[in-house]
Amino acid sequence: MDPSQVDVPPLKDLTIDNITDNVKLINSQCPNPRLKYILERVVQHLHDFARETRLSHDEWMTGLLFLTAVGQICTDVRQEFILLSDVLGLSLLVDSIDHPKPPASTEGTVLGPFHSHEAENAPNGSQIAHDPDGEPCLVLCTIKDTQGKPIGGVKIDIWETDSKGFYDVQYAGREGPDQRAVMESDKEGLFWFKAIVPVPYPIPHDGPVGKLLVQLKRHCYRPSHMHFMFAKEGYDHLITALYLRGDPYETSDAVFGVKESLLIDLGTVNADQAKQYGVKEGSKLMSYDFVLVTEEGSRKLREKNAMEATKKLGLKMKLWNGLPVPDVD
Amino acid sequence: MDPSQVDVPPLKDLTIDNITDNVKLINSQCPNPRLKYILERVVQHLHDFARETRLSHDEWMTGLLFLTAVGQICTDVRQEFILLSDVLGLSLLVDSIDHPKPPASTEGTVLGPFHSHEAENAPNGSQIAHDPDGEPCLVLCTIKDTQGKPIGGVKIDIWETDSKGFYDVQYAGREGPDQRAVMESDKEGLFWFKAIVPVPYPIPHDGPVGKLLVQLKRHCYRPSHMHFMFAKEGYDHLITALYLRGDPYETSDAVFGVKESLLIDLGTVNADQAKQYGVKEGSKLMSYDFVLVTEEGSRKLREKNAMEATKKLGLKMKLWNGLPVPDVD
Repeated sequence: MDPSQVDVPPLKDLTIDNITDNVKLINSQCPNPRLKYILERVVQHLHDFARETRLSHDEWMTGLLFLTAVGQICTDVRQEFILLSDVLGLSLLVDSIDHPKPPASTEGTVLGPFHSHEAENAPNGSQIAHDPDGEPCLVLCTIKDTQGKPIGGVKIDIWETDSKGFYDVQYAGREGPDQRAVMESDKEGLFWFKAIVPVPYPIPHDGPVGKLLVQLKRHCYRPSHMHFMFAKEGYDHLITALYLRGDPYETSDAVFGVKESLLIDLGTVNADQAKQYGVKEGSKLMSYDFVLVTEEGSRKLREKNAMEATKKLGLKMKLWNGLPVPDVD
Repeated sequence: MDPSQVDVPPLKDLTIDNITDNVKLINSQCPNPRLKYILERVVQHLHDFARETRLSHDEWMTGLLFLTAVGQICTDVRQEFILLSDVLGLSLLVDSIDHPKPPASTEGTVLGPFHSHEAENAPNGSQIAHDPDGEPCLVLCTIKDTQGKPIGGVKIDIWETDSKGFYDVQYAGREGPDQRAVMESDKEGLFWFKAIVPVPYPIPHDGPVGKLLVQLKRHCYRPSHMHFMFAKEGYDHLITALYLRGDPYETSDAVFGVKESLLIDLGTVNADQAKQYGVKEGSKLMSYDFVLVTEEGSRKLREKNAMEATKKLGLKMKLWNGLPVPDVD
């Protein structure tokens, strides 16, 4: 680099009190207003955190080595940074901000680190879980819009653990995907499949995040649930899950995913259903009516919430690609 | 885990507004008051950051993948998280907080990611840099306490780049350490060695941190400097560096390390010095009188600053192992 091109505000003699403004100043050349705002806030919070806690050099190093370990344990099928975000409640918060739901619609929840792109397409009625020790569960669901109109052609990603509480990707010697599928709703907005009754399970706790939970005296369990993800053009992407009411971890989910509206009671398959769906009478039944919001409706609500919330925080903002940036004009 | 042992405050129906208090509540079981306080502030700042920026799911994922990449590029000889901390001004801030310096003493600065533990012990007078293209530089320094009394037996770690601006550890095929040494001050507090004139150099910019700097339109250069680290029982550990005045990057150091008191002008070796130290007359001379603070003096100043600063922030704190924690009694 030609040093004559150095064209940044001069810095010198940085102190505890002026370092933050200086770092912001040097970052302020960023041409992307959104990235500039995000970095401005990252720097302010990082520095405030260090000043408030009087962070020691040893603690700083412990933190950096912790983050390094979190990064290094990540693989194609394990994302420890998502898990860290989950146990700190950040994932739930970001989902709530990005996918606001009007009262009549289905709430979202955490994606978790175990969604994979390996799931096979499965027609209605498929057996998606093959663990012989799992308790059979018929799943009957509908998808509607906020006016109650069925939505067909929705791509639905479904994933759950086996009866031992492990996802397929957690087995080193696995032969292929299991307990997961990609389905499509029919013209009546229906989709149905055969799975197993979800069980509680520990999040992966053999890595740095698990060690952190031990230090915090927190358990690493999630209550029984099944994941669902819905995608169709024109509709807001919905990542959610259904939780079994009465689970021992219902009110202490390690990743803060449970919501009242997503708690369900399992039913029992009656004689007619048994005949119609080809399952045993008396077996477990999970049913739910999902309600999707349009992309347009979600965008408008998100932008309205963003402007209201930032105004409430005393910030003068404008929207840039749908996201707030400081209004400096 | 036995679910009957679940003994945490019940959580449910988490929203944008109540998630933070809920995460703090579940973390509040942490028996270590310092870790509890640190986590409390991490959660508050992380969540405030997401709320203020209305962080989108895509941005959240971009951030997590960035941090993952930072972790994954780390090796035994590359610490990209330290580099990230450096370019965000956090390293300088933490050093300033943890190692406060009374007016008469030598200021600290960033450690940087290139200190290694491979440096060999070298007696006074050693040639510690062997790059034939480097401009020879005699380094003559003293170490004193704040009363002006020489301190002998101080372990001094010294490291600099070669003439091309690279540290030894940046060469894949290197045969051993170079441009670094561990020395000891003599009874008069003197230490001296033969090195090369430092040159400006780019911090490693082929990784995620380099890509971030490009996005921010920041250059990745550090002004010419030589690193020094001082250790002796009873004295506060000092990590510092000397910077060459007039360097083109003097006021725009990529890692915010330059301080007025650490800027020096190189001198010229005179005839007497040339004879005494066995170097050419007229060659470059770096000299500096370092002043160390006692461990006790540094501790007292750090604790005084911590109590004053947190009080100024409106926090009611007490010291726990020398570091502030909320005073809840």
